[in-house]
Amino acid sequence: MTEPNNDLLPEGLEDRLPREAAATTRVMRAIQDVMHGHGYDRVLPPMIEFERSLAARMDGINQRRMFRFVDPASLRMMALRSDHTPQIGRIAGTRLAAAARPLRLCYAGQVLTIKGDALDPARERLQCGAELIGADNVAAACEVVAVAIEALRAAGARGISVDFTLPDLVDTLAEKAFPLEPQQIEAVRRELDTKDAGGLVDAGGEAYVPLLYATGDFETAIEKLAAIDAGGALASRIAALRAIAGALGGAARLTLDPSERHGFEYQSWLGFTLYADGVRGTLGRGGTYRIAGSGSGEVATGFSLYPDGLIAQVADGESGADSVFLPLGHDRDVAARLRSIGWRTVAALSETDGAEALGCTHVLAGSEPVKL
Amino acid sequence: MTEPNNDLLPEGLEDRLPREAAATTRVMRAIQDVMHGHGYDRVLPPMIEFERSLAARMDGINQRRMFRFVDPASLRMMALRSDHTPQIGRIAGTRLAAAARPLRLCYAGQVLTIKGDALDPARERLQCGAELIGADNVAAACEVVAVAIEALRAAGARGISVDFTLPDLVDTLAEKAFPLEPQQIEAVRRELDTKDAGGLVDAGGEAYVPLLYATGDFETAIEKLAAIDAGGALASRIAALRAIAGALGGAARLTLDPSERHGFEYQSWLGFTLYADGVRGTLGRGGTYRIAGSGSGEVATGFSLYPDGLIAQVADGESGADSVFLPLGHDRDVAARLRSIGWRTVAALSETDGAEALGCTHVLAGSEPVKL
Repeated sequence: MTEPNNDLLPEGLEDRLPREAAATTRVMRAIQDVMHGHGYDRVLPPMIEFERSLAARMDGINQRRMFRFVDPASLRMMALRSDHTPQIGRIAGTRLAAAARPLRLCYAGQVLTIKGDALDPARERLQCGAELIGADNVAAACEVVAVAIEALRAAGARGISVDFTLPDLVDTLAEKAFPLEPQQIEAVRRELDTKDAGGLVDAGGEAYVPLLYATGDFETAIEKLAAIDAGGALASRIAALRAIAGALGGAARLTLDPSERHGFEYQSWLGFTLYADGVRGTLGRGGTYRIAGSGSGEVATGFSLYPDGLIAQVADGESGADSVFLPLGHDRDVAARLRSIGWRTVAALSETDGAEALGCTHVLAGSEPVKL
Repeated sequence: MTEPNNDLLPEGLEDRLPREAAATTRVMRAIQDVMHGHGYDRVLPPMIEFERSLAARMDGINQRRMFRFVDPASLRMMALRSDHTPQIGRIAGTRLAAAARPLRLCYAGQVLTIKGDALDPARERLQCGAELIGADNVAAACEVVAVAIEALRAAGARGISVDFTLPDLVDTLAEKAFPLEPQQIEAVRRELDTKDAGGLVDAGGEAYVPLLYATGDFETAIEKLAAIDAGGALASRIAALRAIAGALGGAARLTLDPSERHGFEYQSWLGFTLYADGVRGTLGRGGTYRIAGSGSGEVATGFSLYPDGLIAQVADGESGADSVFLPLGHDRDVAARLRSIGWRTVAALSETDGAEALGCTHVLAGSEPVKL
C-alpha cells in the first residue's frame, strides 16, 4: 500500500493561482460594487452553522449535499454552507427583523457541497448575490433583474441573456382557467418539463399544449402566451413580464420559457436564469420567493450568481499587469510615489534578482520606469 | 426536552451585519491592495483539504484545533483550514515550484478552529498575509515588515508598533558564546520565557541573565543587547535588526524582546509581532522561517494579519455612507450617472417606501440629490 500523496487536493477542490485569483478578485469586487451602489448592504454570515439552522431555511435545497460534522463544543451537527440564501433569510428574520422593509442585503463568498455535478465537478464554488426582502412586486423584480445584469456586465460578461419563467404557471392555470384534478397536476407538470405534447394530452392537459410553443425569443413568446385563451388568468403575469422587459431596455437578450421549473421549485410567480456568451452553463438565477422557516414567511426577490465560469473567461483574456523592477538601492520615495499612482513594484532583494526573471515589464531608472 | 433554537449560531461564530461587513470589505481590500502594489500575487487555496496535507506543512500548528470530517468522495479525512500558511507553502512547493524566486504570494480569507482562546472566543477569523518565498535575508525582512505596516496603516490602523524577537537566540548563544549542556538548553529557554533571573541562574544560564533586561524601546534595548559580551555571536543579528529599524524610518513604534519565543517556535532568525492603538491583542505576526514538509525546505519570510480587531475599531468609527432615495418614476439615467460618480442609490418600489425609513441621507429631486 502506497502512502497517499500529501500534495494532492481532494477531487473537486482547487487552488486558484495568480492569474485566476487576480481575475477572481476583480470579478468579485465589480459585482459587489454594483450591488453596493444600488443600496444593497453586505452581510457576512459564517462558513459553518448548525445543520438544523441551515436546513430549516432551505426549502428544497438538499441538505444531504452539505459537508456535515459534529461540533466538539456543542456536540451538535454542523454543516458547511452550500448556499448563502438561507443564511440571508435567517439574518433578515432575526437580527434584522426590525430593520425597515424593503431590506436590501447582499453577500459574496464560498459555498461547498460534498458532490459536484456531471457538468461541473467543483465542490467549492463562489456565490454572490442580492436579496430584496419584503418586496416581490413588479418594481422589485425589475430592480433585481437589472442589478444582476449590471453586475455581470461590470464584471466583464458579454452577450448577457436572461431566460424568464413563471414557476407557478400550472397552479395558476389549474385554479383559474384550465381545471385539473389534483392528481393530474403533477402529471401535467412532468409532461411540460419533458416538453411532450402527446404526453400532455394523455395526462388530460390538452389545454396546456400551447404553452410548449410559447418559448424562445421574449417578444415572440410573450405574444404566444398572451394568445392562449385563459380568461385573463395570465393577464397580470404577462403585464409584469412585459414591464420587466421594458424596464431592461435592451440591457440583455431576453427569452421566455414559461413552464420551465428546473431550479425554480421554490420560486413564486417569477424566475429567471442568467447566461453570458462564452460561459458554459448558467451564471446565475433568481426570482421571487417566500423565505422558508420560522413563522413570518416574508416575501422576497433576489438573485444568486455563480461567477466561476465568468472568472475563467476573464482570466483567459488577461494580460498580466505592468510592474516595475526596483534595483537594489533604489529611491524608496520614488517607489512609493509610483505605487500611489497605481504601479506595482517588485524590489530586488539581492544582486541575483533580475527584472525579467521576476516577470517585470519595466525597470526603475532614476525616478522613471523604463520599459524592458 | 426543548427543541434547540434554529436561529442560534454556534458559540464563537457570528454574522457580520452591514456596518461591520462594510468595514470588513474596506479593511480587507486596503490590505490586499498594498500587498498587490508591492508585487505580491494573490492565490486562493480551497477552504478544505485533506487533513494530512495541511498537517504535513504545519510544523507546530496544532492539527487537533482543526474541524475534521470524512470526505464522502475519498473516504479520507478532510479539515477546514485553520491557517493559510501551509496552503501557501504547498502551492509554492508544487504548482509554483518552477516559478522564479523570490516568489511573492499573498492571501486573504477565513480560517476556522474548533476552539477559540481565552481572550477571543471566535472560532472563525479573517486572516490575510504575504509570503516572500526563497528569501530570508535582511532585505527580505525589511520588505516584509514594511509591507505589513503599510497594509495596516492603509486599513486604518493608528499607532502601529512592531515588537521584534530573535527566535533562535538561545541556540545561537549556546553554540557560539555561552555553552550549555543539551539538557540545560530547554531549562534556560523556559526561565527566559518566564523572565525569571533567579531561575536562570539555577538552570546554569547565568550568562543569559542580561537578556532579560535587553527589552523594551528598540534603541535602548538593542544597545543593551549589543553590550552583552558574546564574542561577536550576535553581531550579525544586531546589525540586521538595526538595518530593519533604519529602513522603517519611523513608520511604527519599535520594541525589542529578544528572547520572546511564544508564537515563534518555528521561526528562524527573526520574528515580529504587530500591534495598533486601541486594538486589543496582536494584529499579526511574522518572521523568517523554513517551509515545512516535502523535501526542499525553502527559506521564506512572511507575515499574517488577523484584522478582526481592527475591523471592529474601523466599524465603530464609521458613519454610514450617504445614499440618495430615488422616488417612483425617477429618471433612470440620472440615477445611473449618480452611481457612476460614487453615489449609492435606494429606489422606491412602492408608494409606501420612504427615504428616511430606508436610511437615506438625500432624495433625488429632478436631476440632483437634495439633502434630507
